[in-house]
This record gives sequence, C-alpha cells and structure tokens, in this order.
Amino acid sequence: MTSGFDVEPVRWDDAVLLLDQRRLPFEETWVRCGDVASVVAAVRDLTVRGAPAIGITAAYGMVVAARELAAGGVGDLGTAREGLQEAAGLLRGARPTAVNLGWALDRQLEVVAAAHADVTALSAALLASAQRIHADEVNACHAIGRLGAALVPEDANLLTHCNAGALATGGFGTALGVVRAAVAAGKSVHVWVDETRPVLQGARLTAWELGRAGIPNTLIPDGAAASVMARGRVDVVVVGADRIAANGDVANKIGTYGVALAAAAHDIPFLVAAPCSTVDLDCANGDAIVVEERDPDEVRSVCGQAVAPPAQAVANPAFDVTPAHLVAAIVTERGVVRAPYDTSLRRLTRGLGT
Amino acid sequence: MTSGFDVEPVRWDDAVLLLDQRRLPFEETWVRCGDVASVVAAVRDLTVRGAPAIGITAAYGMVVAARELAAGGVGDLGTAREGLQEAAGLLRGARPTAVNLGWALDRQLEVVAAAHADVTALSAALLASAQRIHADEVNACHAIGRLGAALVPEDANLLTHCNAGALATGGFGTALGVVRAAVAAGKSVHVWVDETRPVLQGARLTAWELGRAGIPNTLIPDGAAASVMARGRVDVVVVGADRIAANGDVANKIGTYGVALAAAAHDIPFLVAAPCSTVDLDCANGDAIVVEERDPDEVRSVCGQAVAPPAQAVANPAFDVTPAHLVAAIVTERGVVRAPYDTSLRRLTRGLGT
Repeated sequence: MTSGFDVEPVRWDDAVLLLDQRRLPFEETWVRCGDVASVVAAVRDLTVRGAPAIGITAAYGMVVAARELAAGGVGDLGTAREGLQEAAGLLRGARPTAVNLGWALDRQLEVVAAAHADVTALSAALLASAQRIHADEVNACHAIGRLGAALVPEDANLLTHCNAGALATGGFGTALGVVRAAVAAGKSVHVWVDETRPVLQGARLTAWELGRAGIPNTLIPDGAAASVMARGRVDVVVVGADRIAANGDVANKIGTYGVALAAAAHDIPFLVAAPCSTVDLDCANGDAIVVEERDPDEVRSVCGQAVAPPAQAVANPAFDVTPAHLVAAIVTERGVVRAPYDTSLRRLTRGLGT
Repeated sequence: MTSGFDVEPVRWDDAVLLLDQRRLPFEETWVRCGDVASVVAAVRDLTVRGAPAIGITAAYGMVVAARELAAGGVGDLGTAREGLQEAAGLLRGARPTAVNLGWALDRQLEVVAAAHADVTALSAALLASAQRIHADEVNACHAIGRLGAALVPEDANLLTHCNAGALATGGFGTALGVVRAAVAAGKSVHVWVDETRPVLQGARLTAWELGRAGIPNTLIPDGAAASVMARGRVDVVVVGADRIAANGDVANKIGTYGVALAAAAHDIPFLVAAPCSTVDLDCANGDAIVVEERDPDEVRSVCGQAVAPPAQAVANPAFDVTPAHLVAAIVTERGVVRAPYDTSLRRLTRGLGT
C-alpha cells in the first residue's frame, strides 16, 4: 500500500493502526485497535475521521471482528457470519452521516455472504477486500486530484473547510488531493484554511498536512472566510463531502454551507471533491440526510480548555447540507459532474462517466 | 449612574475600573487603571471591548490623564492641554476600527479646549463630561432596546454574533438591549449565540450575560449559524456595530458578514443596533474603514490552549464589513432607519429623527 504521500492515517498490522487525529498536530501517536469495540470507539471519538478514512477503518474492523471470533473459538461459518453481522451493526452505528462507512460495510458483508472453506478463509477474504477498498480509495484520491487540478487556475488562492486531506482518506486526500495535484502540476497555490470549530480539523489537521507538504497556507477563523472572499483573495473553494444525495445536495462538516453561500455571493466556484463511494443515490436530497449531533462539550471546550460553563446550553450539529444549486462541480475519480446533478450523478455511478 | 441592569463593565472610582472581560465567564475580577498607559493597554488587550464601552473608557481615560498631569506638578493650563492632546493620541491609537473611541475623545478635547479656571477645574469638567457620555450611552441602549423590540416577533428565535451586550456598552447593551427590551415587553425569546472565534465573545460574554438575565440561549459554533437558519430556526438576526459608514455599510466583529449573507439567503431580517455615536458620516463606505489585524496568537490558541503550532501563518482580521444592502434596518436611539441609508443616516444625525 503506497499513497504516494507520507501521511496514511489507517494501516493494517494484524490489527487496525490509527494515527491519533485527536492529538495532532502536537503529537504523532498511533492507536492499535485489536477488537471491534475499540474500532467503534476510535471512529466515534474521532481518533480517525473523514468519510473515506472511516470507511476504510470499518472495512478493516470487519477483519478484526473475524479474527476475534476465531480467537474466541468460533469455527463454524454460520456462527461466524452471525457474529460478523453483529459487528457490522456496531460499526455502522458508530457515526451516522458519512455514507462511506455503510458502503464499506456492505461490501464486506458481501464477502461474508460468499462461499468460504472455513472461518480462516473468510477472514483472509475480508482482509483482501479491506486492502482493495483501501487501495481503491487512495487511487480515487489521485484521480480526483488530477481531475480537480484542471479546475484550479495557474496562480490560485484556494479556500478549504475542515480536513478533506490525506488524514480523511486512505492518503493524498480529496479536496487536498486537488491542491496537491495542482501543486504537482506546477501551479502556484496558496490555501486559506478555515480552522473549523468545534473540533478544529482545519487548524490541527489541514494546516499540518499542508505544512508538511510545503504548500503555503494561512489559517483563519471560520468567520473570516466571507471577508477574505470579499477582499478578492479567493479564486476557488474546494471541500470534501460526507454524503452526496441523488440531487447533488452535499452533507459536509458544519460551516460548509455558510462558506458555499459566501462563495456564491462572490461568484467563486465552489467545488466538492469526493469519491463515488460518497454518493448515495438512495438518498433523494439533503432533507433525508441524518445529521449527527455531537457532544456539547466539543463546543464548551477547546482542546480540553473550557470556554463556557458546563451548564451552558449548546447545539453541536457535526454537519450541514449545501444545496446542489450552490455546487459548481463535484469532482469524483470517474469524472467531474455538474448540474443537473440528478442525471449527472446517476450516469456517473452507472459507470458511464461524464 | 444606574443602567437598570446589574452588569456595568466600566466604572469610575477615582480611576477607571474595568470588569476584566478576558477572564469571563470564569472569574469576575476588576482591573483598576490609574494612568493613561494602563487604560491604553486595557483597551488594546480586550480587558474592555465593545465600541460604546471603549468610547466610555477613553472618556474616563482623559480624566485619568488630567489627574496624572496634576499629580506630576503640571499647574499651567497650556501645558496641561498639550499633555491631554498627547494622551488623546495614545488612547485613539489603542484600537483603530470602532469610531466611538475617537468620537468620545473628540468630545473630551472640546472640553479641554474650553475655558477653565485651572487644571483642577479642567479635570473636573472632563469627569463631568465622561459621566455624561457614559449616561448618554446607557440611555441610548435603553432607547435602542425599546425601538428594536418592536421589530421582534412575539415568539422569536433571534441570532446574534459577538457581544453587543451590557459588557460592550455602558450597560444594558445594543443588540442585547433589543433582546432584553423584547423580554421586558413580555415576548417569548430564545437567542442563538455564535461563539465568535477567535476571542469567543459569544461563548464567554453573551451566553454569560443572557444566562444572568435568565434569557434562554443556545451556544453554537460560528459555522452552525447558516444551518440553523436553513432549518427555519431563526426569525431575526441582531448584531451591534463598530462603525457605520455614511452609505450604511457596517463594520462589526469578524464573521458578521457571513451571518448577514446567510440571513439574506433565508429572508431573515438582519438588524444592526448601535448608538448614533457609531455612525461615521466622514467615512463614505466600508472600503474606507480601517480593519484592525490582531495578534495571530488569538487564532493559534484558545484561552491559552494552543491549537496550532507557533509558526503557523495566520490572518486575524478583527472586523468585517457588511454591505448596506444586506442590512434590513439600523436601530439607533433616535429611531430606526432603513435604506437608502445615505439619506436616512444623514437625516438621523442631523437630529431630525426618521
């Protein structure tokens, strides 16, 4: 497994190894998840985050589950399949919004349902499948990067929200894949990085990734994005996605919708970069997307430092929905699609490209 | 001096007493400023903040300056006037964006220029003038509250950004004055409070003020404002202002412009509540407003907790400009004005009301 880049947030080493994204950029520590419960906990507590990355993690989580069952003495395929269904349910429940999680689990459940000689063979098949999912997602990022880079001017100021980078994927990144590919193509790029409260994925992760890659970037409070645009300092906005509905509505990190509105007000193209695994044709539009409400303490504190009293009432929706009409293009590994998304996304996922 | 409310951030007690807003909501401590240098430092480091409050502070700062000169043995009126001009220059330079600072200093310099028996009499006249400015600003807040409350529905969800409350004024508040007056008028009000990075005036000050007043409120990350609006949960946005240009462009805390864009996208009235001292007819439009760039460490850390490495490049504009066309109304103590602002603001400041 090589991503062509030095940041890989998820690794397999007889267990799921996760770069602990809660501690970045100050510590680079790895968490080893050898049972399903710890994989579920790691997804829930944001040790690993980013829609493609949690899909990959869940795929490996099914391998962990199969090995756990075998270690527990389950030798019968039927019993193992029941246990794996249960594990998939636990993993699926870890976070509700990103569709890649369920997509990866569905792929693994197809492997579970296929014919196998014994539990060991099933376990090996799950590992091969997880590694394929991982490799496919990394390759998708590179393809997204190439296609998206063509939409970036030669001398460009980009703005991004949250982290849709190597850390959010198998490596390389979606939105940051576009940035990396533009730089690789010789373009002069500077990135405005929204800090992305409450969890600060922009300040802690995106700025760190871009810094490691030597790509000039400037961190701003989320509230500054619109005024940076007003001052003519942004040419393109590029973000990732957690779920894209059939009509092109895009669920992504809270704050994305406000960025899209500001981009529209300043005629700045708003690009969404995401693998096809993020498209959910079963979801008609943004109203059907379940938005996760997270722990209010994420807002009441910052990196462990209290900023509001413990009793303060808080709303902490983790995602918002950007309506399709604000999205200039969706960059996937199979092609760049534009409105009307109900037809272009359907064509894309049929494998016909655009 | 009574504000009709228990929070008064600036007091006079033979020195300027400031409620230390850097330590709220966790500590209620007072800072005593007995010389001009400490008043300047307190304005600069946000011990006191909010356009009307720093105007009041600067007015008292001139009293401190006069007493400092007298204590230093300056008995000659001409020398005292020179010293006071110098003090006004130092105070004026403490923060560039809020016009109230310069406005209050100009009023005090008129007092300085007037005839006085001696330095003691000049000092007493400056104190009387500062107390008048203070009282006028508190009365203005109450008038703004009454006029603005009429624009709030009976059962309303409001959204505010930053702190335009008692803490930002002499007491009672401008935007929060509208909220308080609506509650006093028997309306059922809930307030969405943007946390307002980087300095978190929403999380630390507005939520604290509303909580003390028993007004229901919910704290949200700045990025959540647009999605709360999209869910139909906001009826009115009300914010303060640091400077209002002759054409109605409004400089206010960074992030205000994005909130105004989101409000416009959802047909939600965007109200600006500010005393007439915030209107700067000498400033043609928002392009002429100097926006303060503050210490990057405000973004690299939160309440002393690092969130990005010390070398991270940062932009930290303290304010942005909301263009007049996004402002439904400006609520002042003399009346509610609407577009076209170039004529309505001019009429207002001529004392003709609306």
